[in-house]
Amino acid sequence: MPEAEIGLIGLGVMGSNLALNIAENASTIAVANRTTEKVDAFHAEAGALKDRIVPCRSLEALVGAIRAPRPIIIMTKAGAAVDEQIAALRPLLQAGDIIIDAGNANFHDTVRRSKELEDSGLTFIGMGVSGGEEGARHGPSIMVGGTAEAYQRVEPMLKAIAARFEGEPCVAHLGADGAGHFVKTIHNGIEYADMQMIAEIYGIMRDGLGMAPAEMADIFARWNEGPLNSYLIDVTAKTLAAKDAETGGALVDQILDSAGQKGTGRWAAIEAQMIGVAATTIESAVAARILSAMKAEREAAEQVFGPIELLDASIDRAGIIDQLEQALLAAKIAAYAQGFAVMAGASADHGWDLPLATIARIWRAGCIIRSQFLDEIAATFEAESGTANLLVTPRFSAMMRDSSVGLRKIVALSATSGIPTPALSAALAYYDTYRQARGTANLIQAQRDFFGAHGFERLDGSGPHHGQWNA
Amino acid sequence: MPEAEIGLIGLGVMGSNLALNIAENASTIAVANRTTEKVDAFHAEAGALKDRIVPCRSLEALVGAIRAPRPIIIMTKAGAAVDEQIAALRPLLQAGDIIIDAGNANFHDTVRRSKELEDSGLTFIGMGVSGGEEGARHGPSIMVGGTAEAYQRVEPMLKAIAARFEGEPCVAHLGADGAGHFVKTIHNGIEYADMQMIAEIYGIMRDGLGMAPAEMADIFARWNEGPLNSYLIDVTAKTLAAKDAETGGALVDQILDSAGQKGTGRWAAIEAQMIGVAATTIESAVAARILSAMKAEREAAEQVFGPIELLDASIDRAGIIDQLEQALLAAKIAAYAQGFAVMAGASADHGWDLPLATIARIWRAGCIIRSQFLDEIAATFEAESGTANLLVTPRFSAMMRDSSVGLRKIVALSATSGIPTPALSAALAYYDTYRQARGTANLIQAQRDFFGAHGFERLDGSGPHHGQWNA
Repeated sequence: MPEAEIGLIGLGVMGSNLALNIAENASTIAVANRTTEKVDAFHAEAGALKDRIVPCRSLEALVGAIRAPRPIIIMTKAGAAVDEQIAALRPLLQAGDIIIDAGNANFHDTVRRSKELEDSGLTFIGMGVSGGEEGARHGPSIMVGGTAEAYQRVEPMLKAIAARFEGEPCVAHLGADGAGHFVKTIHNGIEYADMQMIAEIYGIMRDGLGMAPAEMADIFARWNEGPLNSYLIDVTAKTLAAKDAETGGALVDQILDSAGQKGTGRWAAIEAQMIGVAATTIESAVAARILSAMKAEREAAEQVFGPIELLDASIDRAGIIDQLEQALLAAKIAAYAQGFAVMAGASADHGWDLPLATIARIWRAGCIIRSQFLDEIAATFEAESGTANLLVTPRFSAMMRDSSVGLRKIVALSATSGIPTPALSAALAYYDTYRQARGTANLIQAQRDFFGAHGFERLDGSGPHHGQWNA
Repeated sequence: MPEAEIGLIGLGVMGSNLALNIAENASTIAVANRTTEKVDAFHAEAGALKDRIVPCRSLEALVGAIRAPRPIIIMTKAGAAVDEQIAALRPLLQAGDIIIDAGNANFHDTVRRSKELEDSGLTFIGMGVSGGEEGARHGPSIMVGGTAEAYQRVEPMLKAIAARFEGEPCVAHLGADGAGHFVKTIHNGIEYADMQMIAEIYGIMRDGLGMAPAEMADIFARWNEGPLNSYLIDVTAKTLAAKDAETGGALVDQILDSAGQKGTGRWAAIEAQMIGVAATTIESAVAARILSAMKAEREAAEQVFGPIELLDASIDRAGIIDQLEQALLAAKIAAYAQGFAVMAGASADHGWDLPLATIARIWRAGCIIRSQFLDEIAATFEAESGTANLLVTPRFSAMMRDSSVGLRKIVALSATSGIPTPALSAALAYYDTYRQARGTANLIQAQRDFFGAHGFERLDGSGPHHGQWNA
């Protein structure tokens, strides 16, 4: 007798927590896993939710345990494993069943899989899930790609398990095929930029001002009460405050400065390049992670160039700390402007018609970059749906005008003193390039025409012309 | 009777000039073109070289006119046109013939085409040609990918037509299949960075110091006598000096500040992301071109934020101009360090074993980024073949130590005054990140472990550990 309303394959950290979330808040769920021991262990540890979970020791058993038409969530490692899982499932399923890939898929794969399943009678949904372990368990932000009909069928379940912002569930249908995974990719790209900019601010505090982690923790906690209020600022305060059991000092001081990456930041950067939208804050954050992993090279380089020095003790510390808060806010505006511009560009390129206000709305809770700030972005895109760039909207241009003062001072201070600020300075350069009506590409066009006869337009719009360069 | 030793298909700007170069310096050449009128016109205008050129009105005629085994150069628009041309040629050719794609191919296509032709008996060479119109006619820099045997067969011809640096021809076999087109792509990426950094320096002179083009032309001409000596600095001086026939003013002042791009800069950025090597100077240059094309948006943004203001007239102009020269040199070192690091990374990834010193050597003449500087890079890679990064070599670290002083001052000045310097500040941030033994990614690792249970290593190398973040 089929007793479950939904199935889930893949009981890793994210899959287990999502399954518990569904069992608790939506419906009875059948679960399977490549290694069956995990299924038994998961079921045994499910406590009060045990009766809402049907442990299955094979795909056949899983399919048999779900009432048709069956929604089945795949939550395995992104890549070939997903294709294998789909291939294994297909012969067991029947028309009307829905396969939902909830892993961190590259959206190009999701587009391809949607096409491959188009005539199969099966429905395919590519769904981005953000929020880490905690989010998966108690309410993630869920970004759905697929047909509108497919979404309607899973909407009640997704609304029941999603995070809520002021009562509103953080889930939405964002467009066809790869739209959900694409938006998740850009979410992660923005997350990279956010984290890198925070790390740079931390670097200035540590290496410029010589501050201790506990002292920085207090400042981030204070900032979390202001315009920077966000999950990542809260996380920063808490990680800086955490003690190391072994040494008794700050734990952050014991952690190797070599950051991993799972690829989504890089995908965001690549897609921005593909569609031709500037995403330098994301790119600089990816580059910073790459360089972080080259610890031995950096150690050798410091031997060559010598260490950087603390700022002069007589410097106005309180003033700098205020500027740091401003700088982070201004850089954040620029990074989000880029991220949303990438989505707007991709939306046009891929025919998704991505709803930017809705995206900001479902990012307000559940996901890693959740913040008050996103509520303001949502309101802005709702008020001005045709806006070219977040930077020039009334709300954000006013914030930018104020906070860019601090960003300028901090980038200048860091440049002078040797403290690296790749993402902060990329953010400032983006803003300054974007707001300059008469740029400097006229010289580039002159050069290109000089050596490559590429031609140029004149300011009056006429052209292409060719210069008489050797006259 | 076959009378030519080589063939060329595609008489566009580059193809025509390359054909004349071959006719003059290497051998009799048979030429064909999609539209046959161009073939006749080209032959009619070939002057003294007329007898060395065999005009052909079909591919059959072209193949018949060349002595076997036939080397045939394809010089058409990159992309599908090349595949079509190869498909059309294949049935006409015989074992031992060589197809040479000398266009701006994406190297991934070259890898694919090499594979497709592997068992055909035909030989395929992917060849990057740099130097614009002038280079193609009188000596380009030529980057060859393919088998060593294939290269040997065309080497004498290529050496006869290539540019020369102190007598040494600027052509080399760089590796299998896509190696030549890949190196050309990185050449173009570096060219983007070089041009963008020059444009930023020009912007500071124009918008910060209020200098006139003629005055700037003199300074660039002077710099061309020093460590910045290069074709692009010379081109900059000349384009800034050029007059506009219509207005009598500087031509550069009449050119629209909206730069085109043909994609190779973007390909360089994408490939760097794919292989995970930091290339932020190239990325910022691509982004600057993208933003340059958004003229209307920039005009609207300037309305919102107001124009930037000239620097105070009392500022030390001579001092700043010296700093600008230093800044450009330091940023150039960082950009080339990134470009060569991308090649080193790709070499490992694609199994090409790219000879970095040789690449620098064949870029010393003929190509757009040709310079004295590349002679020093060649010498450096020859002396230290296992070097991790150009930045830490004795020669360049000494240059960087000196010139970074100016770069710091210029980035700080620009940040403060609102003049955009995306590539200059990316270069500085790269240097400062690379030379910091203890970076800030420990905080990023703490955050990732906090919300995603990613784990971290400790400074003592142990791990992965998980923090007790809520303790």
